[in-house]
Amino acid sequence: MNMILIQSNEVDAGGMCCLSDDRARHIRKVLGGVPGKSLRVGLQNGPLGQGMIENIENGQVTLSCTFDNELPQRPSIDLLLAMPRPKVMKRLWAQLAALGVGRIVLLRAEKVERYYFDSHVIDPDFYTPLLQEGLQQARCTHLPEVSVHPLFKPFVEDELEGLFGGHDKLLADPAGTLRLSACMKKIDPARRIVLSIGPEGGWTPYELDHFHGHGFKVFGMGHRILRSDTAVIGLLSIMNELKS
Amino acid sequence: MNMILIQSNEVDAGGMCCLSDDRARHIRKVLGGVPGKSLRVGLQNGPLGQGMIENIENGQVTLSCTFDNELPQRPSIDLLLAMPRPKVMKRLWAQLAALGVGRIVLLRAEKVERYYFDSHVIDPDFYTPLLQEGLQQARCTHLPEVSVHPLFKPFVEDELEGLFGGHDKLLADPAGTLRLSACMKKIDPARRIVLSIGPEGGWTPYELDHFHGHGFKVFGMGHRILRSDTAVIGLLSIMNELKS
Repeated sequence: MNMILIQSNEVDAGGMCCLSDDRARHIRKVLGGVPGKSLRVGLQNGPLGQGMIENIENGQVTLSCTFDNELPQRPSIDLLLAMPRPKVMKRLWAQLAALGVGRIVLLRAEKVERYYFDSHVIDPDFYTPLLQEGLQQARCTHLPEVSVHPLFKPFVEDELEGLFGGHDKLLADPAGTLRLSACMKKIDPARRIVLSIGPEGGWTPYELDHFHGHGFKVFGMGHRILRSDTAVIGLLSIMNELKS
Repeated sequence: MNMILIQSNEVDAGGMCCLSDDRARHIRKVLGGVPGKSLRVGLQNGPLGQGMIENIENGQVTLSCTFDNELPQRPSIDLLLAMPRPKVMKRLWAQLAALGVGRIVLLRAEKVERYYFDSHVIDPDFYTPLLQEGLQQARCTHLPEVSVHPLFKPFVEDELEGLFGGHDKLLADPAGTLRLSACMKKIDPARRIVLSIGPEGGWTPYELDHFHGHGFKVFGMGHRILRSDTAVIGLLSIMNELKS
């Protein structure tokens, strides 16, 4: 943890915050926290700040927090991802939060097995702590918003425009001839981007037609075929690098 | 597997190749191979090609292979990586081979625990199959060369120049102010690049001095602090995107 993530209901009006869970243990055991020592803290979906250790007693850590006036910018990239294998998705949550994603939409596709949606890895009680772990690693506070859509057609017909109507829309496909770096040059830095990444077998022509109809621009990823977790991390990294 | 990787001693002069291990099982069970069907194959460190299934008997698959005349280019990026935690390194092998790395050097650093070098994850018998898995995923044939150096000083003083003397040298460090994309603009595309990535706690000033002395240029990675596997995948992806 490079920052201790705090919920707004854990801090009182005077900035005092009592922790007794994993974070308290981490402060004591890993960071070697002692009274008087100051730590980086962050309010979930809020500002970064400093937490001075006031007191450590019975495993409980009391911090006196002061927060910055400025709010960090919400990550400007959203992700529309064909649901990966649960084992892969489990590993991705923390990394997505660390890389910075505003919204994560997990979508069914023809080449996604139906049973992936029965997995516990898409249960908020399972993934929220992993997203928070990623924020604490990366020293960021914006928790990605997550939604899960086990039906393709109702999502693209009824919900896609509502979520991503004003976004620049990009779609990674092996058939794409443009490079992502070329697409990024034409992006308005003030607008949000949504990145669509298909299953390892690719979106079907029917699915691609829907995305084209909604204005998604297709780019290629070179000749290498990457596992979806490698591809997601790589593409988000390229976009973060070229957007700023 | 998007390609079946074959060793040169497994193919006879007429292009015939008999497989009876995991690859044979994969061809039968996952790819639904039947005689007459053609599969993508690749010779390790050699050309790509096609393998026509001649025969399937007792679980053994016989392929008749023809290989391209052209040899795929060896990946032009090498990686000089402070040894990550064994659990992280275990997950990285296949992804590094899939992303394309010519050489992987795993190095001790002040902030790397000594015992990481006792792990089985740096045993060639352990990592070679993982590298091969990455090649079969990405449809590439160049197996990264790997070396492990449990002592920092002898490596940088006696071996670094021999391996990377003619390379463009880049080093990722939180203190860097240049962006990687800016560095990449000054790179001669004909030259090889070596990318140095430190431990999560960073290289020490002493270690950085050594790297500066050898001509490494330092770049930053933005304000996010990433886990080393996320950082490695992200940085290699950016370099692949901007180099070509």
